[in-house]
Amino acid sequence: MEYRKLKDQDEDGNGGGDDIESRKPLSVTNVPTLGGTTVDWSKWKLKIVVVVALTLLTSSQGILIVWSKRNGKYEYSVTTSNFMVEALKCGLSLLALARIWRIEGVTEDNRLSTTLDEVIVYPIPALLYLVKNLLQYYILEYVDAPGYQILKNLNIISTGVLYRIILKKKLSNIQWAAFILLCAGCSTTQLKTNSDDVFQTPVQGWVMAIVMALLSGFAGVYTEAIMKKRPSRNINVQNFWLYVFGMVFNAVAIVTQDFDAVMNKGFFYGYSFITVLMILNHALSGLAVSMVMKYADNIVKVYSTSVAMLFTAFVSFYLFGFNLSLAFILGTIVVMVSVYLHAVGKQR
Amino acid sequence: MEYRKLKDQDEDGNGGGDDIESRKPLSVTNVPTLGGTTVDWSKWKLKIVVVVALTLLTSSQGILIVWSKRNGKYEYSVTTSNFMVEALKCGLSLLALARIWRIEGVTEDNRLSTTLDEVIVYPIPALLYLVKNLLQYYILEYVDAPGYQILKNLNIISTGVLYRIILKKKLSNIQWAAFILLCAGCSTTQLKTNSDDVFQTPVQGWVMAIVMALLSGFAGVYTEAIMKKRPSRNINVQNFWLYVFGMVFNAVAIVTQDFDAVMNKGFFYGYSFITVLMILNHALSGLAVSMVMKYADNIVKVYSTSVAMLFTAFVSFYLFGFNLSLAFILGTIVVMVSVYLHAVGKQR
Repeated sequence: MEYRKLKDQDEDGNGGGDDIESRKPLSVTNVPTLGGTTVDWSKWKLKIVVVVALTLLTSSQGILIVWSKRNGKYEYSVTTSNFMVEALKCGLSLLALARIWRIEGVTEDNRLSTTLDEVIVYPIPALLYLVKNLLQYYILEYVDAPGYQILKNLNIISTGVLYRIILKKKLSNIQWAAFILLCAGCSTTQLKTNSDDVFQTPVQGWVMAIVMALLSGFAGVYTEAIMKKRPSRNINVQNFWLYVFGMVFNAVAIVTQDFDAVMNKGFFYGYSFITVLMILNHALSGLAVSMVMKYADNIVKVYSTSVAMLFTAFVSFYLFGFNLSLAFILGTIVVMVSVYLHAVGKQR
Repeated sequence: MEYRKLKDQDEDGNGGGDDIESRKPLSVTNVPTLGGTTVDWSKWKLKIVVVVALTLLTSSQGILIVWSKRNGKYEYSVTTSNFMVEALKCGLSLLALARIWRIEGVTEDNRLSTTLDEVIVYPIPALLYLVKNLLQYYILEYVDAPGYQILKNLNIISTGVLYRIILKKKLSNIQWAAFILLCAGCSTTQLKTNSDDVFQTPVQGWVMAIVMALLSGFAGVYTEAIMKKRPSRNINVQNFWLYVFGMVFNAVAIVTQDFDAVMNKGFFYGYSFITVLMILNHALSGLAVSMVMKYADNIVKVYSTSVAMLFTAFVSFYLFGFNLSLAFILGTIVVMVSVYLHAVGKQR
């Protein structure tokens, strides 16, 4: 498998910059293109911007999904909205590419044409995300939104496990402990007076939650493998191919699941302003995820998203008088210790 | 200060058995009396019994204190009940000593007579415990029982800090992180739907909680220093002197605070069955604490009590259908990771 090449890369969580296809033993002079600390800072700036964007987008996702339901049901066809998300991401990637071609001209790294060898892996995350996105809607029929938020934290564990298994990147024992704490801490911050309702989740809900966590983790890890396989390759080209397959799979889903409804009522039947917002949100957070996978890694993604969500809650507390519970504070302490342990655990 | 001698002792949490006054460099042959693994196992057995007893006693303490109030007030005099606790502990220590003298005869280690140099430090923990015990009753006028349980977890942090400062025993960074987690995890397990009421605690309540935590931590650490100063000294003699001063201080408290009430209504006015139970409970847990201080240390005490309390809750869940909340499970996970990190952090 091609992604096995990534095995020893990025052990310091910051190694997404050098081309592993032509990898040589590491030396001090082995720094890419611009050289020195300038690259590191601009890379860090990019990481931060991307991570903050991802956080803001993901935190509003759950609310939008719930808002887009009417009387507990989706009036629009879920398959068409997912198709629209893929199409939008694809379109945005092409727009960005057009701009790059105008400025830089067409090069080996930014041309759209590809080889079978390069493109063959792209359908896999698209397929995984398709199934995950479909499940995301159906799980809310078994679990309420706060319960869903808590179950989503299973993603943290599955990402860590699959990151280890598939990318063969090692986490120390302390880092594993930190990862469990991150999951427990995030869940603690989300405790509400009725959180114990999550125990009433029917078996279908649990199975869906676990399957979703595994799909989400696997899709993330696989995407990282693809995006980093050839680091010099322009991200918009990689995105384009990723999302083209996304469109294909979602088109298949429309035909198999909602063919009659779409034919009778029309493609955009039941779309509201919230639906459009939700599609926009999903598309932009999809692009942000791609960038995190290319320029950072899955662990950075998980940590940044978690920490930034807590930060968002603190900001909301001061701006909007959002209720800061004892559970939230205790969970935040656990997450902060987890971040510390993750950093300290690295040095061992 | 004499207790500074303890500095390097007991780094493995299991060194309460050798006499540090006549300490030689450690060697394989330097095992006390019975030799080999037999000693280790019997020491461990003693530790476990003592720790389990302590746990069961402390977990019922809070409930008894609340039960012993009527219409939100104590009908009996708190100073007399504290005096009775000290007297009971003193009596039980003497009974144990009488039995030992009958079996072993009077030796240098088990004779009651003492030197000024040995006895001079004993009033200090007695004084600290006196103040702490008095505060314990008054704090419940500012905080409700569940809130008090949560605030009591500040003891964990203060014990760690004072253990480091006074006994000069080092904890690794990982062990510090583990200690913070233990505090956060224990608090999480105690979260109830109305836990946020703790934010309504008036300033007096917070100050009392912090002072109590410091007193409790300091008393614990100081007691450990005293009990271990001469490990071969019989624990019942040490207890006797500890509690004699406890009786003295509490007698002073009766005279200064409740003299009129005791004179007019009598010493035992307002005592109920619950009051007697409470006195018995406090006396036995006091003895258990002494044993943990002598044969283990404050860190072992804090961890054992925390873990065993969780264990008690799990048992109650299966036996009495006690409600096991999501908060309890998340807190338990955090405490378990904390125990693991404490053990792993030691090896660094």
